[in-house]
Amino acid sequence: MLAWNPLFRAKPFQFSTLSHTVRSFSCTPIVLRAQVVKRSKSSPNMATATTKKGQPLDRGVIESVLRRRLFYTPSFEIYGGERGLFDYGPPGCALQANVVDLWRKHFVLEEDMLEVDCTMLTPEAVLKTSGHVDKFADWMCKDPKSGEIFRADHLVEQVLEARLRADKDARGMTIEVDEAKEAKKKKKIKDTKIEKLDDAVVQEYEETLAKIDNYSGDELGDLIKKFNIKGPTTGAELDPPKAFNLMFQTQIGPSADKPNGYLRPETAQGQFLNFQKLLEFNQQSMPFASASIGKSFRNEISPRSGLLRVREFLMAEIEHFVDPEGGKKHPRFEDVKETKLTLLNRKVQLSGSTKTEVVTIGEAVSTGLVDNETLGYFLVRIQDFLLKLGIDPSKLRFRQHMANEMAHYAADCWDAELFTSYGWIECVGCADRSAYDLTVHMNKTGAPLVVRQTRAEPLVIEEFQVDLDRKKLGPKFRKDAKAVENAVEALSQELREKLSLDLEKSGKIELQTPGVGSGTTELGSDLVKIEKRKRTEYTREYTPNVIEPSFGIGRILYSLMEHVFYTREGDLARGVLSFPPMIAPTKVLLVPLSSHPDFKPFVKKLTSRLRRIGVPNKVDDSSASIGKRYARNDELGTPFGITIDFQTIKDGSLTLRERDSTKQVRASEDDIIAALKSLVDGEETWEQVSKRLPAFEGQEVD
Amino acid sequence: MLAWNPLFRAKPFQFSTLSHTVRSFSCTPIVLRAQVVKRSKSSPNMATATTKKGQPLDRGVIESVLRRRLFYTPSFEIYGGERGLFDYGPPGCALQANVVDLWRKHFVLEEDMLEVDCTMLTPEAVLKTSGHVDKFADWMCKDPKSGEIFRADHLVEQVLEARLRADKDARGMTIEVDEAKEAKKKKKIKDTKIEKLDDAVVQEYEETLAKIDNYSGDELGDLIKKFNIKGPTTGAELDPPKAFNLMFQTQIGPSADKPNGYLRPETAQGQFLNFQKLLEFNQQSMPFASASIGKSFRNEISPRSGLLRVREFLMAEIEHFVDPEGGKKHPRFEDVKETKLTLLNRKVQLSGSTKTEVVTIGEAVSTGLVDNETLGYFLVRIQDFLLKLGIDPSKLRFRQHMANEMAHYAADCWDAELFTSYGWIECVGCADRSAYDLTVHMNKTGAPLVVRQTRAEPLVIEEFQVDLDRKKLGPKFRKDAKAVENAVEALSQELREKLSLDLEKSGKIELQTPGVGSGTTELGSDLVKIEKRKRTEYTREYTPNVIEPSFGIGRILYSLMEHVFYTREGDLARGVLSFPPMIAPTKVLLVPLSSHPDFKPFVKKLTSRLRRIGVPNKVDDSSASIGKRYARNDELGTPFGITIDFQTIKDGSLTLRERDSTKQVRASEDDIIAALKSLVDGEETWEQVSKRLPAFEGQEVD
Repeated sequence: MLAWNPLFRAKPFQFSTLSHTVRSFSCTPIVLRAQVVKRSKSSPNMATATTKKGQPLDRGVIESVLRRRLFYTPSFEIYGGERGLFDYGPPGCALQANVVDLWRKHFVLEEDMLEVDCTMLTPEAVLKTSGHVDKFADWMCKDPKSGEIFRADHLVEQVLEARLRADKDARGMTIEVDEAKEAKKKKKIKDTKIEKLDDAVVQEYEETLAKIDNYSGDELGDLIKKFNIKGPTTGAELDPPKAFNLMFQTQIGPSADKPNGYLRPETAQGQFLNFQKLLEFNQQSMPFASASIGKSFRNEISPRSGLLRVREFLMAEIEHFVDPEGGKKHPRFEDVKETKLTLLNRKVQLSGSTKTEVVTIGEAVSTGLVDNETLGYFLVRIQDFLLKLGIDPSKLRFRQHMANEMAHYAADCWDAELFTSYGWIECVGCADRSAYDLTVHMNKTGAPLVVRQTRAEPLVIEEFQVDLDRKKLGPKFRKDAKAVENAVEALSQELREKLSLDLEKSGKIELQTPGVGSGTTELGSDLVKIEKRKRTEYTREYTPNVIEPSFGIGRILYSLMEHVFYTREGDLARGVLSFPPMIAPTKVLLVPLSSHPDFKPFVKKLTSRLRRIGVPNKVDDSSASIGKRYARNDELGTPFGITIDFQTIKDGSLTLRERDSTKQVRASEDDIIAALKSLVDGEETWEQVSKRLPAFEGQEVD
Repeated sequence: MLAWNPLFRAKPFQFSTLSHTVRSFSCTPIVLRAQVVKRSKSSPNMATATTKKGQPLDRGVIESVLRRRLFYTPSFEIYGGERGLFDYGPPGCALQANVVDLWRKHFVLEEDMLEVDCTMLTPEAVLKTSGHVDKFADWMCKDPKSGEIFRADHLVEQVLEARLRADKDARGMTIEVDEAKEAKKKKKIKDTKIEKLDDAVVQEYEETLAKIDNYSGDELGDLIKKFNIKGPTTGAELDPPKAFNLMFQTQIGPSADKPNGYLRPETAQGQFLNFQKLLEFNQQSMPFASASIGKSFRNEISPRSGLLRVREFLMAEIEHFVDPEGGKKHPRFEDVKETKLTLLNRKVQLSGSTKTEVVTIGEAVSTGLVDNETLGYFLVRIQDFLLKLGIDPSKLRFRQHMANEMAHYAADCWDAELFTSYGWIECVGCADRSAYDLTVHMNKTGAPLVVRQTRAEPLVIEEFQVDLDRKKLGPKFRKDAKAVENAVEALSQELREKLSLDLEKSGKIELQTPGVGSGTTELGSDLVKIEKRKRTEYTREYTPNVIEPSFGIGRILYSLMEHVFYTREGDLARGVLSFPPMIAPTKVLLVPLSSHPDFKPFVKKLTSRLRRIGVPNKVDDSSASIGKRYARNDELGTPFGITIDFQTIKDGSLTLRERDSTKQVRASEDDIIAALKSLVDGEETWEQVSKRLPAFEGQEVD
């Protein structure tokens, strides 16, 4: 049971883990990658979300900017929309492409990974083996009166939380709540009256909420009965919870008479199935990593929370294959060991706290807090990547999974969580999946998903070996000869030792051979010989373990947009998305002072020069004021602006404006273009550029 | 009927059009985007496929290279594979990423297009409106004995072609055929005996084959009976053809009790549905184009031909929205009008020939061969893109669709076809889809998918207007008042003119009002007034037309790999993929002479320098000979190699090798890196570099 107080959780919001959360089962080692509901575990005093400049963040304001500027939009809106599906418009799409590009450079190229692009359509057999067909499900509850469908755990949670809030109201404990929001919440849950609860009931509710992630369907059904939870809109008794598999089913080919395939719920399986070929491609050299960027699909029961919980989403996943022996060292760990991370460890969570600690990864690995070097190395690389994107380091933490969140075979698992107006959101997971996936696929298909390695030093093994005289065995046992042989093969070293003594003593041994004769077979020393001998093994065969960093690109994009957003001093209506130049959708806006025809050749020449040097740019030659045009582009996150004015016509000089400072410099076209290029490539900062080029004070365009 | 002789078609191979082939229907203007089977229309003397160096191309050889080097591989192979699904391995994946990147630069950035990323999951209602639910189907035939399923048109075609070949054999006409291949073909079709046919039968078969693309299911069924076509493996009578919808169906959300959605068969619909928002984003300015890169899905009945006919494929589609008035001019047409294209026009095809002509696009548009400037502009841009990739210009042609391949509303349609060992393959389509899609979605949803434009000069319209005295109309007609009003609204100008005369003459008019009273309603001049008046229209409203260039990335990749492939002089086993540096998966291979530890620091320094300047590189420090290591990388298409040898340790100099010439230069590290960067960026050619840097003759590494 978790001890942290559910009353203080920021919100009732929660979401399925991205991809690799695993749950331990008492007997079946099944990977369950979407199941576990992870809540935003916020500390009691966690501040509410803020903008880049520390202003309180109003989610309504930023969402309105993002939709108005077409970063994203609900899919099929003119057909009434489809919940949990979103389209990216031009700026969202460019941002996504830039983030993917950076990811590819940061991981695939820099780490020399083997990128693959596998199909989304997946035959049933594959996902049966991986465990998804049987276990990748959530529990849903139907209101028989209205036909509404609820996620059972969400419903229990919402109702209990509403009752606890009402209890607090009744006790006069409510402090600083947004009344409108609270009223809305209460309205949603019909059965909530302002009513004081018994202390024992409060405790029971709190304990239930703390464990809400871990109930089975039957247990959820029992809770619904026990706590008298009814259909929220009808008050009707609910049907018992039913498992709903989260994979989209479909039919591949014309001959299937029933669904025989699924859309993949993760990109990982395609990588595992190609393991053998990738190892061969890598010239049998270990360790190595594969990587994949592509869409995955989850049929959420009741999607909400905008881009954070969607039915179709872009993932970027790495499967780093490593020898399980030798402590899972990483050759470049030395380079990163001084890097500091903000960690929220398992023990702290168990003690009911969310207090993080800042430690170097070297220390974290050496104390065993982070299980091994490879896992630690990737935590650092994940942090590097997120910071390059512009993620606010004070809103990033690594949370360790608790024992009950992991499969029994998993060594360790950490999530990179980003703080947003929805609380702490899991955006990247980094799990040690051990040898699970390769093992189950190998067992099922017989494909040798293993590494065979020549031993640096041959391994000498001393062992009891059994020799059978096959020439005599055949005629004596006929059709049973093979069964006898197999029984001998299967003998453990302990038994062999014992039998060798029997043989020495009595000249014969007794063998358990179920199905042959009486079930016991006697072999004399004419047929069998047992000796202790040395054997030399030149090749080692092993199933690699897998360290899996897995990125939810859509969640990262949304969190990033919250982190870089702010409003101009004194004007709440003037939003700015302060993307770093490297990932900004457009790098520079070209603004001719007016639609005067004299400006046109300058604009044309500039766009073609910028295109040649690969700097994405846009022209705004609309009749709006320059201030308005820049304001629009602040919302689009364009970091730079170039104004073409009458001075340009006279002497060819241009002004360059920086988005965040709204300061401008003025210089020749060549100097401005060179400065822009070096800003976009990250070779110079604005501070440096604004020091070496003359400031333009003529008209500050904010 | 098509007049070209089907006997001379290169192969029985054919494939569904990429995405935008449309077929005319006598009464329903339904877009049918996968249906039409287009064959490789080769000229009788069409040479067989060749390598880049003009060697005869053996498909087996190149496929073995591509699979061995993991450019692609059948998906789920350890589970027995799934037909029509392929994974890209590391080099294929990098090649694909580079091609997509170039596409984005060439089209989205250079043309300032609005890229969107829409979901693949699509609700049924959308695809019902677009026509896909009802019409996006192929005809399939089942062998009731074996359960095998065939595509009906493919089957008829294969059998008739086999019989015609047998007839030719019997007539002693067979010339220069690969006997092994022919034998294999014959074996496939059980009922083929070497048998001379009547001349009339030959003619009937030929005519049937010429029209094979255009038969309905019933007609195909009739042909199967008439020509006595049986199950190829069983000889059994086949079931009648049934329509098989090519879309993958699925269930979105937990409450649907039957499939309610599909995987998109094209990316276009998502773009159309967002038209209004994109127009707004573009500040109401026309023309503009949206673009989208993403996977689409088609449940092929019987996929074959490797990467050319697959069930899941990457598309890149552009929807260029243009005012239908004013001849669909393009502002940058002037810049491209002198560009020459190889065109195979509709008339030539109708005359039974496949003779192409090389003309400038300016001429083609001015003579009306290509319908309009915008279409012409995109044909040039498509050609530019393909040539940048390394497509052999002599294996590229633009084929115009024949009238019966297009929907009745389409103005014109051209396919960029690439010649490969499978014949001419449609890889890019460029169609004028008119206003069809926006119109049907607007009619269905009521969303105003139109452009509203302030007229430069207000339009004054003189027209008959009808005034009704509604105050009197209501009490008089009660529940029928609305119907009467609607009948008046619907009156044409002609009728209004006639009725105004009636009113003047008799003081009343007679109105057809079906369903109201006797069906005719009389209105007196107390109720109605008709006058000719002037009305001024300040705004023009129109539905844009759409020009759609649509790229099958997988088909382009495969054709490209055939075009750039060759084998080293005198050694058929030494394959080379001669990708241009810009799109090569890896740009440079670093080869230390041996595994001597002294080389390691040089390799490390070099990789980190190359990484910093963004040049993807690989190290091969295996123990294989340098020649072997380069040979491996020739197959991977790596254009450059750097050798680190003992001279490097002495003076820091390196050798740089070029893949195609196998020539080397030797210079300082700085010079080599600078040369490499300029080669990869396309700023210098190898010829230029090899002239200015000293040749290295020490050891030619081929």
